[in-house]
Amino acid sequence: MKRTTLLLLILVFSICSLTKSQQLNLMPWPSELKVGEGQFVINKNLRIGVDGNPDKRFHPNLVRFIQQLSKRTTIPFDRDSVLTSSSTASMMIKINRSGIVKLGEDESYILKVETGKITLSSETELGAMHGLQTLLQMLDRNKDFFYFPCLEIIDKPRFAWRGLMIDACRHFIPLEVIKHNIDAMAAVKMNVFHWHLSEDQGFRVESKVFPKLHQLGSNGEYYTQIQIKEVIAYANERGIRVMPEFDIPGHATAWMVGYPELASAAGTYKVEKFFGVFDPTIDPTNKETYKFFEKFFKEMAQLFPEEYMHIGGDENNGVQWDKNTKIQEFMKKNGIKSNHELQAYFNGNLLKILQKNGKIMIGWDEIFQPTLPKTIVIHSWRGRESMEESARKGYQSVLSNGYYIDLFHNCSEHYLNDPLPADSKLNTEEKSRILGGEATMWAELVTGESVDSRIWPRTAAIAERLWSPATVKDVDDMYRRLDAVNLLLEETGIQHIKNREAMMRRLCNGYYIEPLRVLADAVEPLEGYDRHGSQRYTTEFPLSRVADVALSDAPDFVRFRLCFNDYLKTKNRDSYSKMMEYLDKWSNNQQEFYALASNNVALKEALPLSDNLAELANVTRKLMIQFNSGIKNSAAETNAIRIQIEKLNKPVAEMELPLFKFTLDLVGKLRNGEKEE
Amino acid sequence: MKRTTLLLLILVFSICSLTKSQQLNLMPWPSELKVGEGQFVINKNLRIGVDGNPDKRFHPNLVRFIQQLSKRTTIPFDRDSVLTSSSTASMMIKINRSGIVKLGEDESYILKVETGKITLSSETELGAMHGLQTLLQMLDRNKDFFYFPCLEIIDKPRFAWRGLMIDACRHFIPLEVIKHNIDAMAAVKMNVFHWHLSEDQGFRVESKVFPKLHQLGSNGEYYTQIQIKEVIAYANERGIRVMPEFDIPGHATAWMVGYPELASAAGTYKVEKFFGVFDPTIDPTNKETYKFFEKFFKEMAQLFPEEYMHIGGDENNGVQWDKNTKIQEFMKKNGIKSNHELQAYFNGNLLKILQKNGKIMIGWDEIFQPTLPKTIVIHSWRGRESMEESARKGYQSVLSNGYYIDLFHNCSEHYLNDPLPADSKLNTEEKSRILGGEATMWAELVTGESVDSRIWPRTAAIAERLWSPATVKDVDDMYRRLDAVNLLLEETGIQHIKNREAMMRRLCNGYYIEPLRVLADAVEPLEGYDRHGSQRYTTEFPLSRVADVALSDAPDFVRFRLCFNDYLKTKNRDSYSKMMEYLDKWSNNQQEFYALASNNVALKEALPLSDNLAELANVTRKLMIQFNSGIKNSAAETNAIRIQIEKLNKPVAEMELPLFKFTLDLVGKLRNGEKEE
Repeated sequence: MKRTTLLLLILVFSICSLTKSQQLNLMPWPSELKVGEGQFVINKNLRIGVDGNPDKRFHPNLVRFIQQLSKRTTIPFDRDSVLTSSSTASMMIKINRSGIVKLGEDESYILKVETGKITLSSETELGAMHGLQTLLQMLDRNKDFFYFPCLEIIDKPRFAWRGLMIDACRHFIPLEVIKHNIDAMAAVKMNVFHWHLSEDQGFRVESKVFPKLHQLGSNGEYYTQIQIKEVIAYANERGIRVMPEFDIPGHATAWMVGYPELASAAGTYKVEKFFGVFDPTIDPTNKETYKFFEKFFKEMAQLFPEEYMHIGGDENNGVQWDKNTKIQEFMKKNGIKSNHELQAYFNGNLLKILQKNGKIMIGWDEIFQPTLPKTIVIHSWRGRESMEESARKGYQSVLSNGYYIDLFHNCSEHYLNDPLPADSKLNTEEKSRILGGEATMWAELVTGESVDSRIWPRTAAIAERLWSPATVKDVDDMYRRLDAVNLLLEETGIQHIKNREAMMRRLCNGYYIEPLRVLADAVEPLEGYDRHGSQRYTTEFPLSRVADVALSDAPDFVRFRLCFNDYLKTKNRDSYSKMMEYLDKWSNNQQEFYALASNNVALKEALPLSDNLAELANVTRKLMIQFNSGIKNSAAETNAIRIQIEKLNKPVAEMELPLFKFTLDLVGKLRNGEKEE
Repeated sequence: MKRTTLLLLILVFSICSLTKSQQLNLMPWPSELKVGEGQFVINKNLRIGVDGNPDKRFHPNLVRFIQQLSKRTTIPFDRDSVLTSSSTASMMIKINRSGIVKLGEDESYILKVETGKITLSSETELGAMHGLQTLLQMLDRNKDFFYFPCLEIIDKPRFAWRGLMIDACRHFIPLEVIKHNIDAMAAVKMNVFHWHLSEDQGFRVESKVFPKLHQLGSNGEYYTQIQIKEVIAYANERGIRVMPEFDIPGHATAWMVGYPELASAAGTYKVEKFFGVFDPTIDPTNKETYKFFEKFFKEMAQLFPEEYMHIGGDENNGVQWDKNTKIQEFMKKNGIKSNHELQAYFNGNLLKILQKNGKIMIGWDEIFQPTLPKTIVIHSWRGRESMEESARKGYQSVLSNGYYIDLFHNCSEHYLNDPLPADSKLNTEEKSRILGGEATMWAELVTGESVDSRIWPRTAAIAERLWSPATVKDVDDMYRRLDAVNLLLEETGIQHIKNREAMMRRLCNGYYIEPLRVLADAVEPLEGYDRHGSQRYTTEFPLSRVADVALSDAPDFVRFRLCFNDYLKTKNRDSYSKMMEYLDKWSNNQQEFYALASNNVALKEALPLSDNLAELANVTRKLMIQFNSGIKNSAAETNAIRIQIEKLNKPVAEMELPLFKFTLDLVGKLRNGEKEE
């Protein structure tokens, strides 16, 4: 490699490390933090003592902490020596009492790092476990040693419910993927794993009472009860609740493959392979239905110790109900005026079953109906308004609207989506009913191979929204820290970086993937449901195309924009140069990508996108030079540029260029007569 | 990136693809192959029909074949349409009968690819499954489509026993790692997974009869019986036998933690954390010992359906036996003259137990004793001589000497290690007793994170030795194909490339790892047991240093040497230029690595190695220029160069430079008066 290229590369890659030395890369950001002076140096003499009464789950977490520290520092700690009596400890952990993994448990901690002394104290071990994660994020190094910088942190969560939902139905998500996602959740202090387990496309839990549910209602891919127990124990050890969801009465095709008598229309059913909203719906008027659910929920209530049980309830299209004369008669006879009321009747019956099994019912917005008692919890996917309405009416709720990480939106949108924004009109009591939120990973367009790169790192930003004070909302700072935390997340076992690279190697049919990486790091998949527009996806689609390695926040574009924002603020020449380097890189990549794709049909579809990126980079480079020297464009010039770049904004192979909006903005800024922002 | 660098990179990386288009990248190479003309083009219209009577395991293998084809081609095959009745199929599979996963089953297949028509036929589905793997290795692409090149293959294994042993004791190897290794084995047509399950450092199977074995004899990491069954079913579906090993009477500390009465010395025992040969040995003179093993092997015989049961038997140091007066008296009384005879007595008793449970006994060399019947199988780790001796005496055997993949030897050594070399003195009958061989992955210096990169791709070369005709032994051609197959192996789920890159990111504390990669791809870990020389490793060592990402066949050095050999043969200018590019890359990397390591203590120890590599590359560059122009060195000049480079041959941080030997050879070639080879 040539020296000049080397320097260029080092410049580009050093953005992180430059800012890193100036600032901590914690995520979620703590409630209170006071930076100190000096360092706690890590060496073989580290001695950790634990005082107090933690639950037994603390020990394995501490061992994992030592192992992770050992892996990263390459120091071979001898466990028998490191874990010591408190009197000789250089790192002292004090835990008041044993914690319980349930909603509202104390998760606070206080961490003090001094030269030669670390003190971590908490009410329960759950807090101390969060403190250990904070330490791992703080770990730094220089040429001679690893260290924790001195500081003081007083930390506690803003919301008690900080969840991640994974849809394991539309595509099955293998057990080990679930497990390492739980580790990643723990790394960013999340505490609810919501497991979406039944859908039109698959029923994913072994039922011993109704074995045809998993045997016929899936493609053979489901979790055995032993595996479910394994995951629950795994999560519990990491301070995470496991809440199952069985989605009824709609989204229920898979139930009916084995048990067609549950449906509201006679016939045979097969597991759905397309995506969308389908007709098969549970018959709420049939007494046998409730006998079935009596037995089913009794079995699942025993399998899942978590006190909340999610019954879904979303997107019931009512088609089968409307067409079924028996159901229509039942509604007339019982004064039920709408499908919504009928669903409320259904939910009322379910509620009794759940209560009998000691469970609290939670469901999506649609279950909200004033006839149901205030003990149920509304899980809001439709919007903050509907959530606030239920809070006003006395219901507790959890927000997922705005946290749909399957929709390829930029992370900043999720980040700024506050369950309780500053301008909230709710009163204090109503506010207390907003329990928190959940990132939701719906699985139409992910497989076990790609799902990690769709969940992470973005979910870390949602974790921060739910944990940190509302005032922590600087988007640029979030993106800067996210870039660093993203790398650390890899240590939890998630495959978000690894599998993406493997997918690129498969696409390139070789080890040399650089031009594809440069392209993929600068483009984004189409947002919302737009990817579905180009073809009708099924559960069998390979999801191995270039669009599947494009990320919702194109990492190089994010870094580029951070440089621009810094340049705007500080007129820093370095930031300007770095921007120019990115533009050069995108521009030069055209030929490199062409060479890579020229004999490879798998890359062919992305060629126009590579061309567009290069042309847009060239335009942007000119505009930046102009911007830097303060030369404005006339209205006619502005128009001409707009026309030139508009054609570069066409989606290609289900991808688009985030640079386009940036450049369009820049064109606006450069228009004569308009003020610079 | 600069254009010049780009071209350089493309040149460097195109070695594979250049040769690739000329030659097939099959591994193991088939018995007979006739290359045809034209291609079978793959598109949505692919239709596959199956005729005959395969076992039900064939269907899931065929589905995985289609999925893998779909992932790589990005073509969304609709499974219901692809699998069709035979009459309309463009790919026809004919299987005569259902196969059984046991030693000696028919695994042959015939594959014919014509334009528009593929025919795959076999006696059992095991053969057809191998044929599908061959097809996946043949898959190629151009700018317009994916295709299989036309050819005809008649293929069958040379040896019936083609195994991989994984030691899951010294470091525990997680379940999913075991599973994806089984997939990788299937990809290279191996058929025995030998699972080393008990050791001084851990007992790794749940025993319901003697639960203290796994509870106290491990660090809590073991396989449950349900997981064992899962692995057996998983392997069986892929045509692979699962043979357990319980290593006794030595290497048995872990048994005694829970059951000290088994030992030949009174006392309490704890799980060993160091490595080596230790004293704790089963007491073969105690009747209770055999009562224990009666129950234990009955349980394990039922758990593992495989007919062979491995009882280890290696490296019994006899210390506890020598010191135990009761044992000494027993030996006198029974005319047992040596510890070896005592072990034979022990094995004789074990044999009865195994036979009662319908198992054939297999063990390491040490179990070989003429008093034992000819039904036992000798697993040879000591050498080919001892294997041949047992064959002459009528015993069947399996070779592992020469296949110790934990020892960081070059792959070519394993590759050329033929269980039945051309000069073998054995007669035909004796030869028939050599069943095959096994690669052995001992786990002192691997964790679940790194084990895949130690097993693969090298084990594919051993797979070829055991499958392909003895005449297939061109080392350069093996390395060329291995580089390509290595990439495809990633699709089986193994993490050999992925985890190595993640480990490099952790070492670099950033995304930019290129200088470390350049270094790591040019250096090798110390061979044999030399890594243990620098420090006393334990089971708790992190194994996350630079040496842990260095590979036993430094991939760039291997490519460099291939270029040199090609240049020697053909005087190809391209090969010469490519060599020079590698030398430039290594030389230039010095400064880049320095920049990367300058503020990173984790990389510090590798700095001298990077310096040595650069200096050696500079020397080699000069010598190559000289070699190219035919200028010789005097004896004095030769000597001076030797002195100059000798100091670059010093091990650094448990690594060395394979380039050294190459350069030393070159110096020899250039010496005046000596002939060029």
